Formats: sequence, C-alpha cells, structure tokens
Amino acid sequence: MPAHRYSELHTIPFYECNVNNRISIPMLINILILASEHQNEKLGVDQLYLIDKYGIGWVVTSYSIHITELPRKDSVVKMTTRGTSYNRYFAFREFWLHDQDGNELVKVESIWVLMNEKTRKITAIDDDVITPYQSEKVRRVPRLPRPGRIEPEDQMTSKEYQVRWSDIDFNGHVNNSRYPEWMLDSLPMDFLDTHEPTNIDIRFENEVKYGNRVTSSVVVDSSDNDKIKTVHEIKSSDVLSASATIVWKENKAEGQD
Amino acid sequence: MPAHRYSELHTIPFYECNVNNRISIPMLINILILASEHQNEKLGVDQLYLIDKYGIGWVVTSYSIHITELPRKDSVVKMTTRGTSYNRYFAFREFWLHDQDGNELVKVESIWVLMNEKTRKITAIDDDVITPYQSEKVRRVPRLPRPGRIEPEDQMTSKEYQVRWSDIDFNGHVNNSRYPEWMLDSLPMDFLDTHEPTNIDIRFENEVKYGNRVTSSVVVDSSDNDKIKTVHEIKSSDVLSASATIVWKENKAEGQD
Repeated sequence: MPAHRYSELHTIPFYECNVNNRISIPMLINILILASEHQNEKLGVDQLYLIDKYGIGWVVTSYSIHITELPRKDSVVKMTTRGTSYNRYFAFREFWLHDQDGNELVKVESIWVLMNEKTRKITAIDDDVITPYQSEKVRRVPRLPRPGRIEPEDQMTSKEYQVRWSDIDFNGHVNNSRYPEWMLDSLPMDFLDTHEPTNIDIRFENEVKYGNRVTSSVVVDSSDNDKIKTVHEIKSSDVLSASATIVWKENKAEGQD
Repeated sequence: MPAHRYSELHTIPFYECNVNNRISIPMLINILILASEHQNEKLGVDQLYLIDKYGIGWVVTSYSIHITELPRKDSVVKMTTRGTSYNRYFAFREFWLHDQDGNELVKVESIWVLMNEKTRKITAIDDDVITPYQSEKVRRVPRLPRPGRIEPEDQMTSKEYQVRWSDIDFNGHVNNSRYPEWMLDSLPMDFLDTHEPTNIDIRFENEVKYGNRVTSSVVVDSSDNDKIKTVHEIKSSDVLSASATIVWKENKAEGQD
C-alpha cells in the first residue's frame, strides 16, 4: 500500500511574498508545514494528540529543497505531502508544490524525528504514531545532502540577531522558518533582489531560545561560473544552530511584470 | 447609497499566530490589508491600476484597533471592510473581524492618503479613484485618537533593530506590519506571554528604508490599576517613524486549552 498522500490548495497572499512578489523561503517552509499538520489532523495523529498521549512531537532535522519556480503573489498552488518511509528513529517526508496546470514548482525532502517535549530527547518512532501514514518501514531512510561548512580561511561576512518574542513557537523555541530568514538577510540587498534560490540544503542542529543572540555567517562561492553557491551558518554562543548550502540563479527580467 | 462593503472568510494558520496561538498583531494588520486589496481589485481600482494610470498608491497613516478577542489558530474569521468616507486628501476606511457566530472580534478604523510613487508626496483624491467605493464625501474625516509620546522624564526602555531585506515591501519601504512587531518586542517576554492588547492607536510618520537602524522605545504606564498602558516610539536617526499607545488586559488561563 503506497504512503498516504495529502493535498490542499493554497492562495499566496502578498504578506507571504518578498520584494519580488514571489513567496519567501520562510513562508514556503511555513505553508508546507501547514499541509503536513493538516495531514496529521486528518489521520488522527496531530500535535495535540501526540503531546497529550505520548508527550512527544515531530521535529524536522533537515530539508532538501529543489525549486523550479517560486510561486507568485496571488497564485494558487497545490500543496502535497506524504510520509514516505521511516526506520526506528527517522521519518522521511516529501512535499510538492504544483501550479494549477500540474507543473512542479517545488519539491522538498525532509527528515523528522520524534522528540520528548520535556526532555527534548529523541524517542523511537512507535508504530501507533506512524501506521496511519502507510509509510514504508525501511532499514535506512534516504540521506539528504549535508550542507557545507564555513572553514577558517573562508572570507565570510556576518550579521547578528537578537531572538525576538515573535520568533518563538508555541513550544518555546525559535520557529524553523527564522533560520532561513537570518541566512538570507546576511546577503546584500542587491544580490537578493536579482537572484533566486534553486536548491537549499538546510540542517537544524541545536535549538535557539528567546533572548539568545545569533550570528548569521555566509561565504559566497562563485568559483563555478554557471551557478553561485552560498554556505551559511547560524551560531549562538559559538554553538552551531543551523547550516545550509544554497544554490542560486539570476532572476532575469524580474519585477517587470 | 451606503459605502460598498466587502467581506471574505479567512482561516488563521499557525504561522499567523504568536506563542499563545492567537493571531499576532502584525498578521492581524496583514490580513485586513489583504481584504482591502481584494476589495480594490473587485472594484477595478487595484494597486497596479493606480500605479499604471496615475503613478499613485494608497498609504495608511494611522490605525485605531479595538480588540474584543484575538482570533485563535485554525479559526475561521469573516473579514469585512468599507471605504466609509473621504475628503480632498484623506480617506476613512473601516474593518471588522467576526467569528462564525457573528460576534465582533476586532474593529479597526484607519486613515489613508494617496501618495505619488515617485515623489512620495501626498496627492488629492481624484473622483475616478474613489467613486467605486461609494464613500461619503465629507468636509472632515473622523480624527483617530493620537498616540501618546514619550517625554524626556519618562522611564523608557529601548531595543535596536536593523531593517532586514524581508522587512521591505515591493515599494522599497518597510512594511507597515513591522512597526508593531518592533513595538511589541520592546516589552519583556513575561509580559507578552500574559497580556493581550485591547486597544492599539498607531500612527505612521516617516518611512524607513533597507539598511536603516531603528530604535523601539517603550514606557509602561500602570498608574491606572485596571489597565496597563504602553506608549511606543520607533525612531530612525532620531526621526520619528511611528508612535503608538497600546492598552492591555491580562490573558487569564491562556495556554491551558
């Protein structure tokens, strides 16, 4: 039996978009998580149920995001997700965004773990919790590409951020969508106005809390003429919170339509 | 003929909510603006039309926000707006949020001007642009309550923010919803976790751009035992960008449901 697939339509309002009137990366992550939460609800294994019954919750550890085209303001997209496979500790979830003609806009692979809400420790994936997804039980879930790391000899630039109250999730930790916001903001405006990500590999390492200061560092690698690559690290008190590698393309003629 | 009224339903996703699972003030402003943009489109006088034909755009100068109850995550609200009245330079627009039983949750009054997109100067409201709203032509539009100001002898606390790329609107200026975010974040987490705004009077004075640093200052006035009042100022290079007075109530038993 193939994994249960869940789809819903979503219209992208202006406030989910960046200055180029395309959905922002933080909001792209948010709407996909929304789709997965709706699937969890539909299958009777939503956030509240997991907390109430087991004291656990799903936490994403990494995304691999492939972007053919970022949807535009006011466009309607079809969001699809499935819990594809799992083993004792890791679950592999896929997401798709399609336009109304069925063209794939975005494909996302992600790895999730179940975390005890009190101890913040990873717990084994109980059959009860995973069965509704009809996920395939596998020996090893796919390995997502590991983001690059910044080396001491790299020419990096950094910006500092103070974690805000509005960055905090209901669970008291920084919402995952904030890391890519800090990562992107470390790049110059000129670059962000004229480039668009085509691939993002992002990995979450350590949670950040209210009041923490974080440093967002970036190294631009343009050794390959065809594509610019940036390597990002978010650190709090020298502890790595998240890392990412982003591949970019120029967004030609953007803003003229 | 009464002013044209526009309504639509909106479901509030988790990422429009704060840590208490209620819609955040920045997102409250965003969804209301979304409703007004949809009305503009429906009446054939949307943003693109105004820019293309006249080189102008609507800019809000102040809101007076009355909150009975902030809608919760996953709830469905009815957003309603109308362009109630106008004179030569100012337009008065009202907004309502209702729950599905018809109870009023939020009421917002706002004052708007038309601004030349190039010169950033206010222009007179042309009949062509306002006629579709069936707004009442008046000698004076209502005056919204003026927010308080921070006096030199006040005991204020301040936080600094660097304007981010993601704070910027398609027009190159900071999105209006960011000012209340900076204002609220100047208050301690303990306070924000346990209090909820019931009234917000906010006034926008001078636009802020990418790369600017802003200071968000607040004075807490608890001289009235029944309600705590905070007075906020956002300044950039000592120029006032926005000011607000917020009245608060305790949110008892919040987070337990």
